[in-house]
Amino acid sequence: MNILLVYAHPEPQSLNGSLRDFIVDRLQGNGHSVQVSDLYAMGWKAVLDPDDSLDGAIGERFHPERDSRHAFENGRQSPDIAAEQDKLRWADVVILQFPLWWFSMPAILKGWVERVYAYGFAYGVGEHSDRHWGDRYGEGTMAGKRAMLVVTTGGWESHYAARGINGPIDDLLFPIQHGTLYYPGFDVLPPFLLYRSGRMDETRYRQVSAELAARLDTLETTAPIPFRRQNHGDYEIPACTLREDIAPGVHGFAAHLRSAGTDDETEADAGTAVATAA
Amino acid sequence: MNILLVYAHPEPQSLNGSLRDFIVDRLQGNGHSVQVSDLYAMGWKAVLDPDDSLDGAIGERFHPERDSRHAFENGRQSPDIAAEQDKLRWADVVILQFPLWWFSMPAILKGWVERVYAYGFAYGVGEHSDRHWGDRYGEGTMAGKRAMLVVTTGGWESHYAARGINGPIDDLLFPIQHGTLYYPGFDVLPPFLLYRSGRMDETRYRQVSAELAARLDTLETTAPIPFRRQNHGDYEIPACTLREDIAPGVHGFAAHLRSAGTDDETEADAGTAVATAA
Repeated sequence: MNILLVYAHPEPQSLNGSLRDFIVDRLQGNGHSVQVSDLYAMGWKAVLDPDDSLDGAIGERFHPERDSRHAFENGRQSPDIAAEQDKLRWADVVILQFPLWWFSMPAILKGWVERVYAYGFAYGVGEHSDRHWGDRYGEGTMAGKRAMLVVTTGGWESHYAARGINGPIDDLLFPIQHGTLYYPGFDVLPPFLLYRSGRMDETRYRQVSAELAARLDTLETTAPIPFRRQNHGDYEIPACTLREDIAPGVHGFAAHLRSAGTDDETEADAGTAVATAA
Repeated sequence: MNILLVYAHPEPQSLNGSLRDFIVDRLQGNGHSVQVSDLYAMGWKAVLDPDDSLDGAIGERFHPERDSRHAFENGRQSPDIAAEQDKLRWADVVILQFPLWWFSMPAILKGWVERVYAYGFAYGVGEHSDRHWGDRYGEGTMAGKRAMLVVTTGGWESHYAARGINGPIDDLLFPIQHGTLYYPGFDVLPPFLLYRSGRMDETRYRQVSAELAARLDTLETTAPIPFRRQNHGDYEIPACTLREDIAPGVHGFAAHLRSAGTDDETEADAGTAVATAA
């Protein structure tokens, strides 16, 4: 397969740097083609602004969506953005690797998302009507591709547990896994998580890298997180709220998993037939 | 009061730009002193790296936490970082205003947090022991100050409802409101939210600005979000998980509100007496 690793850590000789090298070696050893976007090493421009289009702002004011759409549709994007989009098109699997800073991705990676995810490429795709609200959440440009996070935290695993003070890690990652990866169509694999990254010795590193290797060796077969597809019957369109009879009484992020509530997965998978009946 | 507005939008002549001007005028009209950190206009450096210390990396490798601590403790921080910290010390209230991009803050604002929130200033503060896990989540450098988000979204309110496909807005903002504002000690007021920002006319703008004015006029008296304090009895230390008898059976972000579960607020507020008894 073709695999893109988008990597965001400022120090090559860090734990994250070691894990990045380990990932690349393992994937290549398994016969995959690998490209790495090492955002710090590339000097990636983190800030979305009018320079993202070769034409600058269209009109008197900079309008992020409109100007992104213009640049994307007319081949006028900044070359660094177009190059990353080409890597995404090439990839069968995308891995985002980063340390969790303030409960989200580092700014440089957030800026990669904001700039590379152009209008017409990662959002604003497909029909918007009272039956279909864009090709998103299970459809879109990245449909058929897989994505996975590799995340390190300084905090303890218990701090990120179901009742840990930081909040459950799955919920903290929901804006990324659901809102940023599933949104344009990726199937999102469960994340690889490494807690308490400051406490690492050779024994633990051997253990961690073995666990990571197992995940890398099964990228093609691991079941993705069963997020619900937007346009296939579970949601009212265009309100984009769950139908009352789907997982009744369940709310919050967990409601958007097909396993939530009492509905069975077969129904959720029945797709447009359900939408038509609604 | 002294009020700091940290503002992150690239276009002054945008809806966000209008709201920013409205906020400043209203607060000044109410007799407050206002400073604005307009991150795009300042050309704020979004990326955390060794240049954040006048001494660069200490040692052979850049270590974000260690080098941040060194620079903070020795007055060797980049002047732009120190200036923002001075504004935070000066402020009684901090407002973060931004458009929601990919379900989080823009990269330029994320980079403001990462760089200004130095070790010893916003994290790594206070004793870490088996009774107290740092001055955080209700204690810390920002204790006694208030903070509030002003957030615009392109999406509809229903998309961010309890069963909306994007996830509930309160949960999407939890990593910011709890993990970034409450963490160093701010009391966090409920956010001011403006949905479907692309559909704005004069009538709606008058209504929205009246609602915003009401929030600005009550900054001193609005009740903050009742997040639980970490070191005052509700959590096991150092695991930082909720005690079994606190909101039993509740998990996820909502468990960290004092209103969650069956415990009454008096108990949660009893503070260290509860911790001692545990």
